[in-house]
Amino acid sequence: MKNIILNHRSIRKYKSTPIPEEVLSEMLVAASRASTCGNMQLYSLIVTRDQAVREELLPCHFGQQMVVEAPCVITICADIHRFSMWCEQRDTEPAYDNFAWFLTATIDAMLATQNLITTAEANKLGICVLGTTIYTAGDIARVLELPKGVIPVTTVVVGYPDEKPGLTDRLPMDAIVHFEKYREYTAAEIDELWAEREESALTKKLLEENGLPNLARIFTERRYVKEDNLAVSRSYLDLLKKRGLFNQ
Amino acid sequence: MKNIILNHRSIRKYKSTPIPEEVLSEMLVAASRASTCGNMQLYSLIVTRDQAVREELLPCHFGQQMVVEAPCVITICADIHRFSMWCEQRDTEPAYDNFAWFLTATIDAMLATQNLITTAEANKLGICVLGTTIYTAGDIARVLELPKGVIPVTTVVVGYPDEKPGLTDRLPMDAIVHFEKYREYTAAEIDELWAEREESALTKKLLEENGLPNLARIFTERRYVKEDNLAVSRSYLDLLKKRGLFNQ
Repeated sequence: MKNIILNHRSIRKYKSTPIPEEVLSEMLVAASRASTCGNMQLYSLIVTRDQAVREELLPCHFGQQMVVEAPCVITICADIHRFSMWCEQRDTEPAYDNFAWFLTATIDAMLATQNLITTAEANKLGICVLGTTIYTAGDIARVLELPKGVIPVTTVVVGYPDEKPGLTDRLPMDAIVHFEKYREYTAAEIDELWAEREESALTKKLLEENGLPNLARIFTERRYVKEDNLAVSRSYLDLLKKRGLFNQ
Repeated sequence: MKNIILNHRSIRKYKSTPIPEEVLSEMLVAASRASTCGNMQLYSLIVTRDQAVREELLPCHFGQQMVVEAPCVITICADIHRFSMWCEQRDTEPAYDNFAWFLTATIDAMLATQNLITTAEANKLGICVLGTTIYTAGDIARVLELPKGVIPVTTVVVGYPDEKPGLTDRLPMDAIVHFEKYREYTAAEIDELWAEREESALTKKLLEENGLPNLARIFTERRYVKEDNLAVSRSYLDLLKKRGLFNQ
Protein backbone atom coordinates (compact mmCIF):
# COMPACT_ATOMS: atom_id res chain seq x y z
CA MET A 1 0.00 0.00 0.00
CA LYS A 2 2.75 2.35 1.09
CA ASN A 3 4.63 1.71 -2.15
CA ILE A 4 1.55 2.19 -4.30
CA ILE A 5 0.99 5.68 -2.92
CA LEU A 6 4.69 6.63 -2.91
CA ASN A 7 5.17 5.45 -6.49
CA HIS A 8 2.27 7.37 -7.99
CA ARG A 9 2.98 8.91 -11.38
CA SER A 10 0.58 10.67 -13.71
CA ILE A 11 0.33 8.54 -16.86
CA ARG A 12 -0.34 10.26 -20.18
CA LYS A 13 0.15 7.35 -22.62
CA TYR A 14 -2.09 4.31 -22.35
CA LYS A 15 -2.64 0.92 -23.94
CA SER A 16 -6.15 0.38 -25.27
CA THR A 17 -6.57 -2.80 -23.15
CA PRO A 18 -9.95 -2.59 -21.39
CA ILE A 19 -10.18 -2.53 -17.60
CA PRO A 20 -11.59 -5.84 -16.28
CA GLU A 21 -15.10 -5.37 -14.85
CA GLU A 22 -14.09 -6.67 -11.42
CA VAL A 23 -11.20 -4.19 -11.19
CA LEU A 24 -13.42 -1.27 -12.19
CA SER A 25 -15.99 -2.43 -9.67
CA GLU A 26 -13.34 -2.65 -6.93
CA MET A 27 -12.23 0.93 -7.73
CA LEU A 28 -15.78 2.27 -7.52
CA VAL A 29 -16.56 0.46 -4.26
CA ALA A 30 -13.30 1.82 -2.79
CA ALA A 31 -14.43 5.32 -3.75
CA SER A 32 -17.73 4.80 -1.96
CA ARG A 33 -15.98 3.83 1.31
CA ALA A 34 -14.26 7.21 1.78
CA SER A 35 -15.52 9.49 4.55
CA THR A 36 -18.59 11.46 3.52
CA CYS A 37 -20.32 14.23 5.47
CA GLY A 38 -23.45 12.92 7.23
CA ASN A 39 -23.14 9.80 5.03
CA MET A 40 -24.89 11.82 2.31
CA GLN A 41 -22.55 10.81 -0.56
CA LEU A 42 -23.18 14.02 -2.47
CA TYR A 43 -21.24 13.02 -5.57
CA SER A 44 -21.64 11.01 -8.76
CA LEU A 45 -18.98 9.11 -10.69
CA ILE A 46 -19.59 9.02 -14.43
CA VAL A 47 -17.70 6.16 -16.03
CA THR A 48 -17.34 6.76 -19.76
CA ARG A 49 -15.92 3.93 -21.86
CA ASP A 50 -17.95 4.47 -25.06
CA GLN A 51 -15.56 5.79 -27.71
CA ALA A 52 -18.09 8.20 -29.23
CA VAL A 53 -18.78 9.88 -25.87
CA ARG A 54 -15.06 10.13 -25.11
CA GLU A 55 -14.60 11.81 -28.48
CA GLU A 56 -17.22 14.36 -27.41
CA LEU A 57 -15.27 14.89 -24.18
CA LEU A 58 -11.95 15.28 -26.01
CA PRO A 59 -12.26 19.03 -26.83
CA CYS A 60 -13.42 19.69 -23.24
CA HIS A 61 -9.98 18.44 -22.23
CA PHE A 62 -8.15 20.54 -24.82
CA GLY A 63 -7.60 17.59 -27.15
CA GLN A 64 -5.41 15.60 -24.75
CA GLN A 65 -5.30 12.29 -26.64
CA MET A 66 -5.33 10.11 -23.54
CA VAL A 67 -9.06 10.89 -23.23
CA VAL A 68 -9.70 8.73 -26.32
CA GLU A 69 -6.64 6.46 -26.12
CA ALA A 70 -7.17 5.18 -22.57
CA PRO A 71 -10.15 2.84 -22.23
CA CYS A 72 -11.94 4.74 -19.49
CA VAL A 73 -12.58 8.31 -18.38
CA ILE A 74 -14.28 8.96 -15.02
CA THR A 75 -15.84 12.37 -14.46
CA ILE A 76 -16.34 13.15 -10.80
CA CYS A 77 -19.23 15.47 -10.02
CA ALA A 78 -20.58 17.24 -6.97
CA ASP A 79 -24.21 16.05 -6.91
CA ILE A 80 -26.91 17.52 -4.69
CA HIS A 81 -29.58 16.47 -7.20
CA ARG A 82 -30.03 12.84 -6.09
CA PHE A 83 -30.23 13.73 -2.39
CA SER A 84 -32.60 16.61 -3.12
CA MET A 85 -34.89 14.34 -5.18
CA TRP A 86 -35.09 12.01 -2.22
CA CYS A 87 -35.91 14.87 0.18
CA GLU A 88 -38.63 16.15 -2.16
CA GLN A 89 -40.15 12.68 -2.46
CA ARG A 90 -40.32 12.67 1.34
CA ASP A 91 -42.18 15.99 1.36
CA THR A 92 -39.41 18.13 2.78
CA GLU A 93 -37.42 21.04 1.33
CA PRO A 94 -33.83 19.96 0.68
CA ALA A 95 -31.98 23.33 1.00
CA TYR A 96 -28.62 21.98 -0.23
CA ASP A 97 -28.56 24.21 -3.32
CA ASN A 98 -25.95 26.50 -1.83
CA PHE A 99 -22.22 27.15 -1.78
CA ALA A 100 -21.60 25.37 1.54
CA TRP A 101 -22.94 22.11 0.12
CA PHE A 102 -21.12 22.49 -3.16
CA LEU A 103 -17.97 22.72 -1.04
CA THR A 104 -18.90 19.77 1.17
CA ALA A 105 -19.82 17.71 -1.89
CA THR A 106 -16.50 18.61 -3.54
CA ILE A 107 -14.49 17.65 -0.45
CA ASP A 108 -16.22 14.27 -0.22
CA ALA A 109 -15.96 13.69 -3.97
CA MET A 110 -12.19 14.24 -3.88
CA LEU A 111 -11.65 11.90 -0.91
CA ALA A 112 -13.59 9.27 -2.88
CA THR A 113 -11.51 10.04 -5.99
CA GLN A 114 -8.20 9.37 -4.27
CA ASN A 115 -9.51 6.00 -3.04
CA LEU A 116 -10.44 5.20 -6.63
CA ILE A 117 -6.96 6.23 -7.80
CA THR A 118 -5.09 4.21 -5.16
CA THR A 119 -7.19 1.15 -5.96
CA ALA A 120 -6.61 1.57 -9.69
CA GLU A 121 -2.86 1.80 -9.09
CA ALA A 122 -2.92 -1.23 -6.77
CA ASN A 123 -4.30 -3.09 -9.80
CA LYS A 124 -1.42 -1.94 -12.02
CA LEU A 125 -3.51 0.68 -13.77
CA GLY A 126 -2.26 4.20 -14.38
CA ILE A 127 -4.23 7.41 -13.96
CA CYS A 128 -4.13 11.08 -14.83
CA VAL A 129 -6.19 13.78 -13.11
CA LEU A 130 -7.43 16.36 -15.63
CA GLY A 131 -7.41 19.92 -14.28
CA THR A 132 -9.10 21.00 -17.52
CA THR A 133 -12.41 19.87 -15.99
CA ILE A 134 -13.09 23.18 -14.27
CA TYR A 135 -12.10 25.12 -17.40
CA THR A 136 -14.88 23.59 -19.48
CA ALA A 137 -17.28 22.28 -16.85
CA GLY A 138 -20.31 23.66 -18.72
CA ASP A 139 -19.40 21.79 -21.90
CA ILE A 140 -18.73 18.59 -19.97
CA ALA A 141 -22.10 18.96 -18.24
CA ARG A 142 -23.77 19.15 -21.66
CA VAL A 143 -21.93 16.11 -23.05
CA LEU A 144 -22.69 14.01 -19.97
CA GLU A 145 -26.29 15.30 -19.75
CA LEU A 146 -25.95 16.39 -16.14
CA PRO A 147 -29.17 17.61 -14.55
CA LYS A 148 -29.37 20.77 -12.44
CA GLY A 149 -27.63 20.28 -9.09
CA VAL A 150 -24.77 18.31 -10.63
CA ILE A 151 -21.45 19.90 -11.63
CA PRO A 152 -18.16 18.37 -12.84
CA VAL A 153 -15.26 18.86 -10.42
CA THR A 154 -12.51 16.70 -11.81
CA THR A 155 -11.80 13.89 -14.26
CA VAL A 156 -9.61 10.82 -13.94
CA VAL A 157 -8.31 9.00 -17.03
CA VAL A 158 -7.67 5.32 -16.26
CA GLY A 159 -5.95 2.53 -18.18
CA TYR A 160 -2.87 0.34 -18.46
CA PRO A 161 0.25 2.55 -18.80
CA ASP A 162 2.14 2.65 -22.07
CA GLU A 163 4.99 4.71 -20.62
CA LYS A 164 7.20 4.59 -17.53
CA PRO A 165 7.81 8.18 -16.45
CA GLY A 166 10.15 8.92 -13.54
CA LEU A 167 8.85 10.09 -10.21
CA THR A 168 8.00 13.81 -10.24
CA ASP A 169 9.92 15.93 -7.74
CA ARG A 170 8.02 17.63 -4.94
CA LEU A 171 8.89 20.58 -2.75
CA PRO A 172 10.72 19.62 0.48
CA MET A 173 8.25 18.51 3.17
CA ASP A 174 9.05 21.69 5.14
CA ALA A 175 7.26 23.63 2.43
CA ILE A 176 3.84 22.06 2.92
CA VAL A 177 3.87 20.99 6.59
CA HIS A 178 3.52 23.33 9.54
CA PHE A 179 3.61 22.28 13.18
CA GLU A 180 1.13 23.63 15.76
CA LYS A 181 0.28 26.84 13.83
CA TYR A 182 1.16 28.31 10.43
CA ARG A 183 4.79 29.31 10.37
CA GLU A 184 5.31 32.25 8.02
CA TYR A 185 8.12 31.80 5.49
CA THR A 186 11.06 34.17 5.28
CA ALA A 187 12.22 35.23 1.84
CA ALA A 188 15.35 33.12 2.33
CA GLU A 189 13.23 30.06 3.16
CA ILE A 190 11.18 30.49 -0.01
CA ASP A 191 14.41 30.62 -2.03
CA GLU A 192 15.63 27.49 -0.29
CA LEU A 193 12.39 25.54 -0.78
CA TRP A 194 12.47 26.09 -4.54
CA ALA A 195 16.27 25.92 -4.98
CA GLU A 196 16.56 22.30 -6.05
CA ARG A 197 13.77 22.59 -8.60
CA GLU A 198 15.08 25.88 -9.98
CA GLU A 199 18.53 24.39 -10.46
CA SER A 200 17.34 21.18 -12.11
CA ALA A 201 18.20 20.22 -15.68
CA LEU A 202 14.47 20.09 -16.48
CA THR A 203 14.02 23.71 -15.40
CA LYS A 204 17.05 24.82 -17.43
CA LYS A 205 15.58 23.11 -20.50
CA LEU A 206 12.18 24.79 -19.91
CA LEU A 207 13.76 28.22 -19.53
CA GLU A 208 15.65 27.80 -22.78
CA GLU A 209 12.55 26.59 -24.66
CA ASN A 210 10.44 29.43 -23.32
CA GLY A 211 13.05 32.18 -23.49
CA LEU A 212 12.27 33.21 -19.92
CA PRO A 213 14.70 34.03 -17.09
CA ASN A 214 13.07 31.99 -14.28
CA LEU A 215 10.65 29.15 -13.55
CA ALA A 216 8.05 31.32 -11.80
CA ARG A 217 7.54 33.25 -15.05
CA ILE A 218 6.83 29.99 -16.90
CA PHE A 219 3.89 29.56 -14.53
CA THR A 220 2.61 33.13 -14.66
CA GLU A 221 3.30 33.87 -18.35
CA ARG A 222 2.85 30.46 -20.02
CA ARG A 223 1.04 27.85 -17.99
CA TYR A 224 -1.51 29.58 -15.79
CA VAL A 225 -1.99 33.12 -16.98
CA LYS A 226 -4.01 35.78 -15.13
CA GLU A 227 -6.67 36.32 -17.83
CA ASP A 228 -7.32 32.57 -18.12
CA ASN A 229 -7.48 32.16 -14.35
CA LEU A 230 -10.03 34.96 -14.08
CA ALA A 231 -12.06 33.69 -17.04
CA VAL A 232 -12.25 30.20 -15.50
CA SER A 233 -13.24 31.72 -12.14
CA ARG A 234 -16.10 33.61 -13.79
CA SER A 235 -17.32 30.72 -15.94
CA TYR A 236 -17.31 28.21 -13.09
CA LEU A 237 -19.11 30.64 -10.76
CA ASP A 238 -21.71 31.29 -13.47
CA LEU A 239 -22.19 27.56 -13.84
CA LEU A 240 -22.56 27.13 -10.07
CA LYS A 241 -25.36 29.72 -10.19
CA LYS A 242 -27.08 28.13 -13.21
CA ARG A 243 -26.85 24.64 -11.74
CA GLY A 244 -28.37 25.77 -8.43
CA LEU A 245 -25.28 25.34 -6.27
CA PHE A 246 -24.58 28.92 -5.26
CA ASN A 247 -27.35 30.13 -2.97
CA GLN A 248 -26.15 31.99 0.11
CA MET B 1 -4.42 -2.05 0.82
CA LYS B 2 -7.82 -3.07 -0.49
CA ASN B 3 -8.87 -4.07 3.03
CA ILE B 4 -7.60 -0.84 4.55
CA ILE B 5 -9.78 1.25 2.25
CA LEU B 6 -12.80 -1.06 2.47
CA ASN B 7 -12.64 -1.19 6.27
CA HIS B 8 -12.50 2.55 6.84
CA ARG B 9 -14.58 3.76 9.78
CA SER B 10 -14.75 7.24 11.24
CA ILE B 11 -13.34 7.03 14.77
CA ARG B 12 -14.66 9.40 17.42
CA LYS B 13 -13.05 7.96 20.60
CA TYR B 14 -9.27 7.88 20.83
CA LYS B 15 -6.49 6.74 23.16
CA SER B 16 -4.07 9.50 24.14
CA THR B 17 -1.08 7.44 22.87
CA PRO B 18 1.08 9.70 20.70
CA ILE B 19 1.66 8.94 17.03
CA PRO B 20 5.26 7.80 16.44
CA GLU B 21 7.26 10.41 14.51
CA GLU B 22 8.07 7.98 11.69
CA VAL B 23 4.39 7.13 11.20
CA LEU B 24 3.38 10.79 11.11
CA SER B 25 6.18 11.46 8.67
CA GLU B 26 5.06 8.57 6.44
CA MET B 27 1.50 10.00 6.42
CA LEU B 28 2.70 13.46 5.42
CA VAL B 29 4.98 12.18 2.66
CA ALA B 30 2.11 10.04 1.32
CA ALA B 31 -0.03 13.19 1.19
CA SER B 32 2.65 14.99 -0.82
CA ARG B 33 2.72 12.24 -3.46
CA ALA B 34 -0.91 12.73 -4.57
CA SER B 35 -1.54 14.30 -7.98
CA THR B 36 -1.29 18.09 -7.90
CA CYS B 37 -2.09 20.52 -10.70
CA GLY B 38 1.08 21.73 -12.44
CA ASN B 39 3.04 20.27 -9.48
CA MET B 40 2.19 23.49 -7.64
CA GLN B 41 1.15 21.83 -4.31
CA LEU B 42 -1.18 24.68 -3.41
CA TYR B 43 -2.01 23.40 0.07
CA SER B 44 -0.62 23.36 3.58
CA LEU B 45 -1.04 20.71 6.26
CA ILE B 46 -1.05 22.10 9.79
CA VAL B 47 -0.21 19.40 12.31
CA THR B 48 -1.38 20.43 15.77
CA ARG B 49 -0.33 18.27 18.71
CA ASP B 50 0.07 20.95 21.36
CA GLN B 51 -2.75 20.54 23.87
CA ALA B 52 -3.25 24.29 24.36
CA VAL B 53 -3.70 24.94 20.64
CA ARG B 54 -6.09 22.00 20.31
CA GLU B 55 -8.11 23.49 23.16
CA GLU B 56 -8.32 26.71 21.15
CA LEU B 57 -9.53 24.68 18.16
CA LEU B 58 -12.13 22.80 20.24
CA PRO B 59 -14.94 25.43 20.01
CA CYS B 60 -14.26 25.75 16.25
CA HIS B 61 -15.30 22.10 16.04
CA PHE B 62 -18.38 22.59 18.20
CA GLY B 63 -16.74 21.05 21.27
CA GLN B 64 -16.24 17.59 19.76
CA GLN B 65 -14.01 16.08 22.46
CA MET B 66 -11.90 14.04 20.04
CA VAL B 67 -10.15 17.30 19.09
CA VAL B 68 -8.48 17.35 22.51
CA GLU B 69 -8.58 13.63 23.32
CA ALA B 70 -6.81 12.37 20.17
CA PRO B 71 -3.10 13.24 20.08
CA CYS B 72 -3.13 15.02 16.72
CA VAL B 73 -5.35 17.29 14.65
CA ILE B 74 -4.37 18.10 11.06
CA THR B 75 -5.97 21.14 9.44
CA ILE B 76 -5.81 21.02 5.65
CA CYS B 77 -5.72 24.40 3.94
CA ALA B 78 -5.87 25.69 0.39
CA ASP B 79 -2.69 27.79 0.17
CA ILE B 80 -1.86 30.16 -2.66
CA HIS B 81 0.29 32.27 -0.33
CA ARG B 82 3.51 30.24 -0.52
CA PHE B 83 3.43 29.95 -4.31
CA SER B 84 2.58 33.65 -4.65
CA MET B 85 5.48 34.64 -2.39
CA TRP B 86 7.79 32.67 -4.65
CA CYS B 87 6.40 34.37 -7.78
CA GLU B 88 6.79 37.80 -6.20
CA GLN B 89 10.38 37.06 -5.21
CA ARG B 90 10.98 36.19 -8.87
CA ASP B 91 9.55 39.57 -9.98
CA THR B 92 6.38 38.28 -11.57
CA GLU B 93 2.70 38.79 -10.66
CA PRO B 94 1.22 35.54 -9.31
CA ALA B 95 -2.50 35.95 -10.26
CA TYR B 96 -3.69 32.90 -8.32
CA ASP B 97 -5.85 34.94 -5.93
CA ASN B 98 -9.06 33.85 -7.62
CA PHE B 99 -11.87 31.32 -7.36
CA ALA B 100 -10.45 28.96 -10.00
CA TRP B 101 -7.28 28.50 -7.96
CA PHE B 102 -9.12 28.14 -4.69
CA LEU B 103 -10.96 25.29 -6.38
CA THR B 104 -7.82 23.73 -7.85
CA ALA B 105 -6.04 24.05 -4.50
CA THR B 106 -9.00 22.42 -2.74
CA ILE B 107 -9.13 19.51 -5.19
CA ASP B 108 -5.41 18.84 -4.75
CA ALA B 109 -5.60 19.27 -0.98
CA MET B 110 -8.34 16.65 -0.73
CA LEU B 111 -6.49 14.11 -2.89
CA ALA B 112 -3.51 14.61 -0.56
CA THR B 113 -5.78 14.25 2.47
CA GLN B 114 -7.09 10.85 1.42
CA ASN B 115 -3.52 9.60 0.95
CA LEU B 116 -2.78 10.80 4.47
CA ILE B 117 -5.88 8.99 5.77
CA THR B 118 -5.14 5.69 4.01
CA THR B 119 -1.56 5.76 5.29
CA ALA B 120 -2.74 6.52 8.83
CA GLU B 121 -5.16 3.60 8.69
CA ALA B 122 -2.48 1.30 7.23
CA ASN B 123 -0.57 2.06 10.44
CA LYS B 124 -3.55 1.07 12.64
CA LEU B 125 -4.48 4.65 13.39
CA GLY B 126 -8.07 5.88 13.22
CA ILE B 127 -9.27 9.15 11.73
CA CYS B 128 -12.28 11.42 11.62
CA VAL B 129 -12.87 14.12 9.00
CA LEU B 130 -14.43 17.23 10.58
CA GLY B 131 -17.04 18.92 8.38
CA THR B 132 -17.22 21.68 10.99
CA THR B 133 -14.09 23.20 9.39
CA ILE B 134 -16.03 25.17 6.78
CA TYR B 135 -18.54 26.34 9.42
CA THR B 136 -15.90 28.16 11.45
CA ALA B 137 -13.06 28.59 8.96
CA GLY B 138 -12.50 32.21 10.01
CA ASP B 139 -12.01 31.26 13.66
CA ILE B 140 -9.70 28.39 12.72
CA ALA B 141 -7.68 30.79 10.55
CA ARG B 142 -7.23 33.07 13.56
CA VAL B 143 -6.19 30.26 15.91
CA LEU B 144 -3.71 28.83 13.41
CA GLU B 145 -2.44 32.31 12.41
CA LEU B 146 -3.04 31.72 8.71
CA PRO B 147 -1.80 34.53 6.47
CA LYS B 148 -3.84 35.96 3.59
CA GLY B 149 -4.11 33.44 0.74
CA VAL B 150 -4.56 30.48 3.08
CA ILE B 151 -7.98 29.10 4.05
CA PRO B 152 -8.98 25.98 6.03
CA VAL B 153 -10.85 23.39 3.95
CA THR B 154 -11.07 20.37 6.20
CA THR B 155 -9.63 18.83 9.36
CA VAL B 156 -8.57 15.29 10.13
CA VAL B 157 -8.36 14.04 13.72
CA VAL B 158 -5.82 11.20 14.03
CA GLY B 159 -4.97 8.77 16.81
CA TYR B 160 -5.22 5.19 18.03
CA PRO B 161 -8.89 4.13 18.17
CA ASP B 162 -10.56 3.57 21.52
CA GLU B 163 -13.74 2.18 19.97
CA LYS B 164 -14.63 -0.39 17.33
CA PRO B 165 -17.64 0.92 15.43
CA GLY B 166 -19.30 -1.22 12.76
CA LEU B 167 -18.99 -0.41 9.09
CA THR B 168 -21.34 2.42 8.06
CA ASP B 169 -23.85 1.52 5.36
CA ARG B 170 -23.61 3.23 1.99
CA LEU B 171 -26.18 3.69 -0.76
CA PRO B 172 -26.15 0.88 -3.37
CA MET B 173 -23.41 1.45 -5.97
CA ASP B 174 -26.13 2.14 -8.58
CA ALA B 175 -26.87 5.37 -6.72
CA ILE B 176 -23.47 6.97 -7.22
CA VAL B 177 -22.18 5.38 -10.45
CA HIS B 178 -23.40 6.26 -13.95
CA PHE B 179 -22.18 4.63 -17.13
CA GLU B 180 -21.36 6.68 -20.24
CA LYS B 181 -23.56 9.68 -19.33
CA TYR B 182 -25.68 10.72 -16.36
CA ARG B 183 -28.71 8.50 -16.09
CA GLU B 184 -31.61 10.41 -14.54
CA TYR B 185 -33.33 8.62 -11.65
CA THR B 186 -37.01 7.76 -11.69
CA ALA B 187 -38.98 8.38 -8.51
CA ALA B 188 -39.23 4.61 -8.05
CA GLU B 189 -35.44 4.27 -8.32
CA ILE B 190 -34.90 6.92 -5.66
CA ASP B 191 -37.26 5.02 -3.35
CA GLU B 192 -35.38 1.81 -4.04
CA LEU B 193 -31.92 3.32 -3.48
CA TRP B 194 -32.87 4.56 -0.01
CA ALA B 195 -35.15 1.63 0.93
CA GLU B 196 -32.67 -0.42 2.95
CA ARG B 197 -31.48 2.59 4.94
CA GLU B 198 -35.00 3.83 5.58
CA GLU B 199 -36.07 0.42 6.87
CA SER B 200 -33.05 -0.07 9.13
CA ALA B 201 -33.28 -0.37 12.91
CA LEU B 202 -30.96 2.65 13.22
CA THR B 203 -33.35 4.82 11.21
CA LYS B 204 -36.34 3.62 13.25
CA LYS B 205 -34.51 4.57 16.44
CA LEU B 206 -33.62 8.02 15.03
CA LEU B 207 -37.21 8.70 13.99
CA GLU B 208 -38.47 7.83 17.43
CA GLU B 209 -35.84 10.01 19.17
CA ASN B 210 -36.56 12.96 16.87
CA GLY B 211 -40.34 12.58 16.67
CA LEU B 212 -40.20 12.83 12.87
CA PRO B 213 -41.97 10.69 10.25
CA ASN B 214 -39.04 10.05 7.89
CA LEU B 215 -35.25 10.08 7.58
CA ALA B 216 -35.10 12.90 5.03
CA ARG B 217 -36.68 15.24 7.57
CA ILE B 218 -33.95 14.38 10.08
CA PHE B 219 -31.50 15.80 7.55
CA THR B 220 -33.49 18.89 6.61
CA GLU B 221 -34.94 19.73 10.03
CA ARG B 222 -32.26 18.55 12.47
CA ARG B 223 -28.85 17.91 10.94
CA TYR B 224 -28.34 20.32 8.06
CA VAL B 225 -30.93 23.04 8.24
CA LYS B 226 -31.52 25.65 5.52
CA GLU B 227 -30.64 28.73 7.63
CA ASP B 228 -27.36 27.15 8.79
CA ASN B 229 -26.46 26.07 5.24
CA LEU B 230 -27.03 29.58 3.96
CA ALA B 231 -25.16 31.17 6.86
CA VAL B 232 -22.14 28.90 6.26
CA SER B 233 -22.27 29.69 2.54
CA ARG B 234 -22.18 33.42 3.27
CA SER B 235 -19.45 33.25 5.91
CA TYR B 236 -17.16 31.05 3.82
CA LEU B 237 -17.62 33.25 0.74
CA ASP B 238 -16.86 36.34 2.86
CA LEU B 239 -13.72 34.65 4.09
CA LEU B 240 -12.67 33.72 0.53
CA LYS B 241 -12.97 37.40 -0.35
CA LYS B 242 -11.07 38.59 2.74
CA ARG B 243 -8.31 36.04 2.25
CA GLY B 244 -7.83 37.01 -1.40
CA LEU B 245 -9.13 33.81 -2.99
CA PHE B 246 -12.19 35.08 -4.78
CA ASN B 247 -11.13 37.33 -7.65
CA GLN B 248 -12.95 36.66 -10.91
